[in-house]
Amino acid sequence: MSLSINRDTRLCMSLSGRPGNFGTRFQNFLYQALDLNYVYKAFTTGDLPAAIGGIRALGIRGCAISMPFKEACIPLVDAMDDSARAIASVNTIVNDDGHLHAYNTDYIAIRTLIERHALSPATRLALRGSGGMAKAVACAFRDAGFRHGHIVARNEAAGRRLAEVSGFSWVADTAGLDAQLLINVTPLGMEGPEADQLAFDRVEVERAHVIFDVVALPPETPLIKLARSQGKPVITGADVIVLQAVEQFVLYTGVRPDDALIAQAAAHALRSSG
Amino acid sequence: MSLSINRDTRLCMSLSGRPGNFGTRFQNFLYQALDLNYVYKAFTTGDLPAAIGGIRALGIRGCAISMPFKEACIPLVDAMDDSARAIASVNTIVNDDGHLHAYNTDYIAIRTLIERHALSPATRLALRGSGGMAKAVACAFRDAGFRHGHIVARNEAAGRRLAEVSGFSWVADTAGLDAQLLINVTPLGMEGPEADQLAFDRVEVERAHVIFDVVALPPETPLIKLARSQGKPVITGADVIVLQAVEQFVLYTGVRPDDALIAQAAAHALRSSG
Repeated sequence: MSLSINRDTRLCMSLSGRPGNFGTRFQNFLYQALDLNYVYKAFTTGDLPAAIGGIRALGIRGCAISMPFKEACIPLVDAMDDSARAIASVNTIVNDDGHLHAYNTDYIAIRTLIERHALSPATRLALRGSGGMAKAVACAFRDAGFRHGHIVARNEAAGRRLAEVSGFSWVADTAGLDAQLLINVTPLGMEGPEADQLAFDRVEVERAHVIFDVVALPPETPLIKLARSQGKPVITGADVIVLQAVEQFVLYTGVRPDDALIAQAAAHALRSSG
Repeated sequence: MSLSINRDTRLCMSLSGRPGNFGTRFQNFLYQALDLNYVYKAFTTGDLPAAIGGIRALGIRGCAISMPFKEACIPLVDAMDDSARAIASVNTIVNDDGHLHAYNTDYIAIRTLIERHALSPATRLALRGSGGMAKAVACAFRDAGFRHGHIVARNEAAGRRLAEVSGFSWVADTAGLDAQLLINVTPLGMEGPEADQLAFDRVEVERAHVIFDVVALPPETPLIKLARSQGKPVITGADVIVLQAVEQFVLYTGVRPDDALIAQAAAHALRSSG
């Protein structure tokens, strides 16, 4: 990945507790492929208000926001897009001449994927997880008209809170559920200690029509592999992470790459992200 | 100029009213040549305290400070190096884990050039100019032991102020001076409306032993050309701008490039800076 930098180059960045490489690799690949005078760099901070103040003062064009800053940055921006307001969570800030506009492209990406896969709002869903990303996913389904389903979470307080916000019902486990759409928004199946864990078991997968796993590292989780082996349609975490990053790219640059180029950027960025 | 960026890449930057390309081209060339995981980008700002706060909060490694921020940033840093304290002017900030240490590498560069050219403190100098850079130059000569000479400035208030600070005498013009060292720290001879102006006239150059022109764009000013045509030793603005940038590079990275590499970086950066 190589880039040219001069005095007119615009900086985009990310703020997260533990910066990864995906955003940096994805955005810089597209800047270069499309010959846009931008550069992208990941940061962390111990002082979020000063970091956001710096974005404004330095004219940094855009900033991806990750854990643990997605809610803390809300009082620091000037305006909230519907996507961020819908879930009271920000993952993208766009700086227009010092005016900071907040978005949530995770939410936008989930809405887009629901539409692309023509998922019917009548579908009964089971969504496993109760963290920030689970909120984005559950609320995207809520706002797409889904009314039937369960939030599955061992953490009862968080599970009940998310169920209340999203209009689904909370349950502690999947016993007795008969879901047509399985959605994993936990770290089960992710690189690390839970890499070989299945978020839903074989029988549940057999009963379901569509399997959606938000885990992106790797996108081929045990759950996705199991679903594929049964010939079920899947939506992977790679679909989410790439689509939300494309929306960020469009917000920062005003340019929408074509699908072939997005696929190249995704392959490049996922090859060794983390 | 191409660079790789990942999550471990360190950002260095500049803050100035009108960003140029020299620093960006010089620093990025050396980062790449020495395979250092750094990237450099120029910024301007309308809110200096928030910009400096952003440097601290984002862990930006270093920042070059140019007009009009060289004095305004003093209350915003945590410590002043002798080089910045000597002239109450900052052109470089180094960020060590949130602790901002201010330097003036223009001052350091002038001190180094005085030493390299073995200029005797007994030399009678005439320094033309009364701005921020004139202060750095005059005080560097003062601190190197020079006691005999004149500050030549049409602006009497600024000229007298600088003369007082530096211990030289103020005069409005060069009439009657018999200087052995001529120093131009005005825009005379610089690209733009005064490109063909001579800071000192032919007779003055003939009488002098050494000619020092701080103008770097271009380094071959009419004054330097005249001095060369008379076989006089010269110190050019390229010597100053490159040397001060090397000192910044060393402060940011801890690495001192060798002379051949510095010459390459300088040629690259001066080729089309501005």
